[in-house]
Amino acid sequence: MATQPDNYYDIVIVGAGPVGLMLSTCLSRWGYKIKHIDNRPEPTATGRADGIQPRSLDLLRNMGLKSAIMAHKPARVYEVAFWDPPKTGGGIVRTGTWPSCPEFIDARYPFTTLLHQGLIERVFIADLEKNGTEIQRPWTITGFTSDEKADPTYPVTVQLAHVDDSSKTETVKAKYLFGGEGARSFIRDQLKIGITHKDPISYVWGVMDGVVKTDFPDMKMKCTIHSEHGSIMVIPREANMVRLYIQIASSTDADFHPRKTATEEEVQAAAKRILAPYSIEWERVEWYSVYPIGQGISDKYTLDHRVFLGGDACHTHSPKAGQGMNTAFLDALNLAWKIHAVEGGLAERHILETYEPERKDVAETLLAFDNKYAKLFSQRPDAASTAQATASGVSHGNPDAKQSAEENEFIKTFKESCEFTSGYGVFYKPNALNYSSSHPASSASAAAEAANTTKLVPGRLFINSTVTRVVDANVVHLEQEIPLNGSFRLFIFAGSLTNPSQKTALESLAAGLSKPDSFFARFKRADIDSVSHHERHNPHSKFFTLATVFAAKRTEVEISRDLPELLARYRDNVYADDRWDRRVPDAKAAAHAKMGFDEEKGGVVVVRPDGYVGFVCKLEEGEKTVEALEKYFGAFISKQ
Amino acid sequence: MATQPDNYYDIVIVGAGPVGLMLSTCLSRWGYKIKHIDNRPEPTATGRADGIQPRSLDLLRNMGLKSAIMAHKPARVYEVAFWDPPKTGGGIVRTGTWPSCPEFIDARYPFTTLLHQGLIERVFIADLEKNGTEIQRPWTITGFTSDEKADPTYPVTVQLAHVDDSSKTETVKAKYLFGGEGARSFIRDQLKIGITHKDPISYVWGVMDGVVKTDFPDMKMKCTIHSEHGSIMVIPREANMVRLYIQIASSTDADFHPRKTATEEEVQAAAKRILAPYSIEWERVEWYSVYPIGQGISDKYTLDHRVFLGGDACHTHSPKAGQGMNTAFLDALNLAWKIHAVEGGLAERHILETYEPERKDVAETLLAFDNKYAKLFSQRPDAASTAQATASGVSHGNPDAKQSAEENEFIKTFKESCEFTSGYGVFYKPNALNYSSSHPASSASAAAEAANTTKLVPGRLFINSTVTRVVDANVVHLEQEIPLNGSFRLFIFAGSLTNPSQKTALESLAAGLSKPDSFFARFKRADIDSVSHHERHNPHSKFFTLATVFAAKRTEVEISRDLPELLARYRDNVYADDRWDRRVPDAKAAAHAKMGFDEEKGGVVVVRPDGYVGFVCKLEEGEKTVEALEKYFGAFISKQ
Repeated sequence: MATQPDNYYDIVIVGAGPVGLMLSTCLSRWGYKIKHIDNRPEPTATGRADGIQPRSLDLLRNMGLKSAIMAHKPARVYEVAFWDPPKTGGGIVRTGTWPSCPEFIDARYPFTTLLHQGLIERVFIADLEKNGTEIQRPWTITGFTSDEKADPTYPVTVQLAHVDDSSKTETVKAKYLFGGEGARSFIRDQLKIGITHKDPISYVWGVMDGVVKTDFPDMKMKCTIHSEHGSIMVIPREANMVRLYIQIASSTDADFHPRKTATEEEVQAAAKRILAPYSIEWERVEWYSVYPIGQGISDKYTLDHRVFLGGDACHTHSPKAGQGMNTAFLDALNLAWKIHAVEGGLAERHILETYEPERKDVAETLLAFDNKYAKLFSQRPDAASTAQATASGVSHGNPDAKQSAEENEFIKTFKESCEFTSGYGVFYKPNALNYSSSHPASSASAAAEAANTTKLVPGRLFINSTVTRVVDANVVHLEQEIPLNGSFRLFIFAGSLTNPSQKTALESLAAGLSKPDSFFARFKRADIDSVSHHERHNPHSKFFTLATVFAAKRTEVEISRDLPELLARYRDNVYADDRWDRRVPDAKAAAHAKMGFDEEKGGVVVVRPDGYVGFVCKLEEGEKTVEALEKYFGAFISKQ
Repeated sequence: MATQPDNYYDIVIVGAGPVGLMLSTCLSRWGYKIKHIDNRPEPTATGRADGIQPRSLDLLRNMGLKSAIMAHKPARVYEVAFWDPPKTGGGIVRTGTWPSCPEFIDARYPFTTLLHQGLIERVFIADLEKNGTEIQRPWTITGFTSDEKADPTYPVTVQLAHVDDSSKTETVKAKYLFGGEGARSFIRDQLKIGITHKDPISYVWGVMDGVVKTDFPDMKMKCTIHSEHGSIMVIPREANMVRLYIQIASSTDADFHPRKTATEEEVQAAAKRILAPYSIEWERVEWYSVYPIGQGISDKYTLDHRVFLGGDACHTHSPKAGQGMNTAFLDALNLAWKIHAVEGGLAERHILETYEPERKDVAETLLAFDNKYAKLFSQRPDAASTAQATASGVSHGNPDAKQSAEENEFIKTFKESCEFTSGYGVFYKPNALNYSSSHPASSASAAAEAANTTKLVPGRLFINSTVTRVVDANVVHLEQEIPLNGSFRLFIFAGSLTNPSQKTALESLAAGLSKPDSFFARFKRADIDSVSHHERHNPHSKFFTLATVFAAKRTEVEISRDLPELLARYRDNVYADDRWDRRVPDAKAAAHAKMGFDEEKGGVVVVRPDGYVGFVCKLEEGEKTVEALEKYFGAFISKQ
C-alpha cells in the first residue's frame, strides 16, 4: 500500500466513551491508523454508567482487559431485592429477591460488575496507548463530508477544532467516520437522522453516588424500593459507595417540565422518607446529577456505510436495566471486526450493511425489554413462581432438575429478560453472516451439511465449555481460548479419537482447507514465511484461527499422530473434551454434549470474530465439510 | 509508646528473597518499623526459584497479591510427564503422566504456577512501598549482638555496611533480627549454628532458562526425562520460555568435584543427546547457571528468639519438587504473625518458641520427601496404579468415586507426596497453638467440648468451602473471606437457622465474648470508638475476626434478626451455606458437611492467622463454648 499523507486515517472516532473506546481499542490492536478525539479535557471523573453485565465481562476477558477491571475491586451484584409498602402500616418491607443471572444461564460470571465508568475508560485508554493511539482532547468535530465517488479509498473529510481555542483546527481524510458522541450527536444531527421514541413518556432522574451509613440491610444489593413517598433504585458500587437513582418527574405529571430539577439535599430528604423506618446518612457524596431521559432510537445507524453511529447516539433508555455501556460495547465490536474484514481484504464491502440491522434490532429489543422489565418490577408474582423461574434449568443441590413443563408467561418473560440483560440472550437474525436455510449461499446440499445440532444456533453466542488443553494439560474455558483477534474461529469438534472415519474426516478437512483456492488458503498472511513457530492463533492467516477438540482423555491424544499437519500447527489449540460438567452430568464428552454434537461424530462450528456462531456443519469424510464451509464463507468473502 | 530514636527498628531483615520479602510485607502491613537490606543492587533479574505451589497461590490471594502475579501470565503446570528409554531401541518414550495436584486434593488452583522469581519479588516490593518500607541496596550485615538483659525491648544491635563502599556504615537497634540471606547465611555462621546433611550425596546442577524450538511434544509440561545419555527435568515458564535442569555431577561420581562445571554449549549438546530423536534448538538463553547443592538443614532456627533464620538459610535441597520458595513463604508467615501477636500485646513471648519446631519439622519432612519424591520418579509403577492414585477421592465424571480399600504403599506415598508438595499437606504438630488432648490448657471438660469433627484437625489447614455472603449475595470462597490481617479467625458454623437452641447458643457465645475479662474483650482496639462503621474485619480487636455461617438459604437469613449484636457487627462476614459442592453432593449444607459438622448443630473453628486450624469446639447453649475457647487461648495469650 502506498504511503499516505500524515492527515490520512483509516478512521476518525469522535467520542471516547465506552463505544468509541471499544472501537478504537479493537482497530488499534489490529493495526489501523486512528484519529480519536473527545470534547472532554479528561476521562469521566465521576458518575455515568457503571454496570458491566456477565457477558460483557466475558468479552473483556477475551480482550485481556478483565483483570485490569477487577483490580479496582468493583461491586458484584448477584441478586436484586424488591422492597414495597407492607399490606398494613407504613414503611417498607422486602417482598422478594431475584438472581441477576440465574443458574439456567450458563454464565462464567453470574453477576453484574459495578465500577465507575472513568476507571473502565482508563483501562481501555492504557491499552490504546500501548498500541500507539492517543485520544486528542478536548477536541470536537465541526463538520464532515463523505463522497465515495470523489475518493473511493478515503471518501470522508472531517473538520476538527480545539474546544477552547477555535483557531486550532485540523482537516483530515479518512476511510470511515464514527460518531460515538452520546445522545446529543453532532454527526447524527448533520446527517439529519431522526430519533423515534418508543415510549412517549420521558422522565427526569436524579442520580447520586456516595458513601452512606445506614441500617437498611440490602444496601450492598441492587434494590428497587417502592414506598408511599416515592421510588428509589439502589446500585452498590466499589469502595463502599452506593448509587441511588430517584425519579424526580415524569412527563405524565401535571406540572412536568424536562428541566425540572432537585437539589442534592432534596433528593437526600426524599431518600430518607422512602427508606423509613431505616435510617440513611451520607458520609460523602461523590457525584450528583439530574437529567431528563426518554426512550429513543436512531432511525438509521449509517447512510452510506462510511459514516457510522453507535452507542448512546443510537439508543437512549432508562438506566434501570444497566444496559447502556454493554450495548455500546457490542455496537463497537460488531462494527470493528466488519471494518477489519473489509479493509483487511477478507470480506466484500456489503458485510458493513449488516451492522445497522444487527445492532438496531438489538436496540429495539432493548427498548422493548426496558418496558417489559419495568413492568416486571411493578407486577411481581408470588414467591413460588419466582423460585421456579430462577431455578429452572440447573438448581442448587440438584443438577438433574428439569425445566418445568408448566412454565407460565411470567417465567418466560423473566427468563428472557434475564438472558437478555445478562448479555447471553443477545442474538442476531439470519443474514449472510448468520447461516439459515435462507442464507444467500444456501442450497439443498449445503443445508444437508449444515447444523447437526439444535444447541448451537447461528446468530447466537458460542456455548461455554471447559476442556483440557493437550499440550500443557491446562484446564481451560474453550470459548476464551481464541482471543478477540479479528479472526473467524473454526472449532473442529473431532469426536472419537479412535474411529478411523473420524481421522479420515479430519484429513479431508485439512486437505480441503489446504487447496490453494480454498477460503482459508486464499487469505494467507503476506509474511507467512517469517511467522514465529510460537505464533499460536494466526500462523497462516490473520482471519482464521483453528482449534480441534477430541472426545477423549488428554493423555490419549498425541498431536503429531492424531491431527493432520495443518491442524497440528495449531498445537496450542488442541483440546481433550474430558472435564465433567454439572450441566451434562452423564456426558462422556461434556463439551461435545453441550454443543449438541454426537460424541463419536463431532461437527464443525464457525464462530464469528465477535463470539457469535456463524455456521455449524457436520464433520465428514470426503469433500462435503469443506464444501459446506466454502458455501457459508462464499456469501461474503472477497472473490479475489 | 514513647518515641524511639530514628535508628531503632522493630526488626532488621537481611535479604530480600522470598522469605525476607514475605516477612517484611506482613509486618509492614501490620504497622511495624522495618530496616530491610539486601546485598544485591536490584531484585533478581533472571533465574532462581520459580514455582508457586497450589496452596501458596491461596496464600498470595489471601494477601491480595495473586492477581499481580497472574498478570505476568505465568505457565501453569497441571501434569508431570515421565520419559524413559524404550524397552527396545534408543531414544525416549513417554511412559506416563501424573497430575501435579490430583483431584483428591481439594485445591482451588490445582496447578503449579511458574514465574521468574524477580517478577514475584517485584510484586512484594511494590506492596512494601505502599506501606512505607524500602529495601536498602546494596547493603550487607557486618555484625550483630543480642542481649535481652542489657535492653529488654531493643536487645539487638546490628552493624550494616554498603557493599561497594565500606565507609558507609550504620548501627541500628532492633527488637528482632531476621536472616533470610540464603544458603550462605552470615547470621547463621556468626551464631555458629551447624548444618546437618540428611543425604550425604551432593550434586552439581546446570540450569538453563531460554526459548527453544523443538518437536518434543511435552515441552509445555513438567517432565523428567531419563535416557542413556543422562537425565533432564523440563519446567515450562512464562513467555514461551522453558527451564531445563540437568545433573552435571554427583558426589558418587569417581571424579566428583563440587566445582565441576559445564559450558552452556556443553549442556545444550547434552540436552540434544538426551532428547533425541526429538530436536531442540535455542532461540535465546535468558539465564544459565551451574551450582552445587546438597540436602542440608540448619540445626537451629534461633538461639534466643530474637535473632531468627528462615528460608534457604535453614534448608537446602534439590530443586526437583519445586518447594524452595514455598517453604520460604511459610517460614516467614509463621514467624510474622507470632511476632505480631507478641509485640501487639496479644500473646505471651513463649509462642515464638513454636517457630523453630513447627518450621524445622516441615523442613525435615521436606527433605525426607525430597528423597522419597526422587525415588518415586525413578521407580514408577504400572499405569493402573497411577490411574488409581490420581483418581482416588473424586474422579472425573464420577463424583461418587470412593477411595479404594486396597490402597497400596505406592499410592499412599504418591498421595502424601502430592499433598505435601501442593502445600495442602503441610501440617504442624500439637503445641500451645494447635490443640490436642495434651494441650497445655487441656482438661477433661475442655476435651469434651473440643472437636466434634474429625475433618478439621488442629495444625492442619482450614478446609476450603464455597458459601453465599448474606449481605450482597456474592458467592465466595469462605477460606479467603478473612484476609491475612494478623487476626485469629473465629468461624462460627451456626447450624440450623430455625432451631431455637442454636439461636440461644449464638447468644451465649456473644454474651461470653462480651464479658470484659474474656479473651476477646481484653484485646480491644485502643481506637475502638473511632472505628469506621465500614470496618469489616477488625471493628473490635486487631487480633480477632469473627464470621458466622448458617446452614440455610441466603434469603432465609436476616442479619439483624438472626445474629446477636456482636456477631451482627461483622455483617460482611455472615454467610449462608447454600452452595452445592461436588465433593459432598448430597449435603444440604456443603460447608458444614466438609468441615464435618452436623448441619443442625454446627461448631466453632479457631483458625490461626496463617490459615491453620488451632482449635475446634462445639457450639452449645450456656457457657461451655466460651469456656472451651478461653481454655484454648489461655495457653498463650497475655495474662494482663
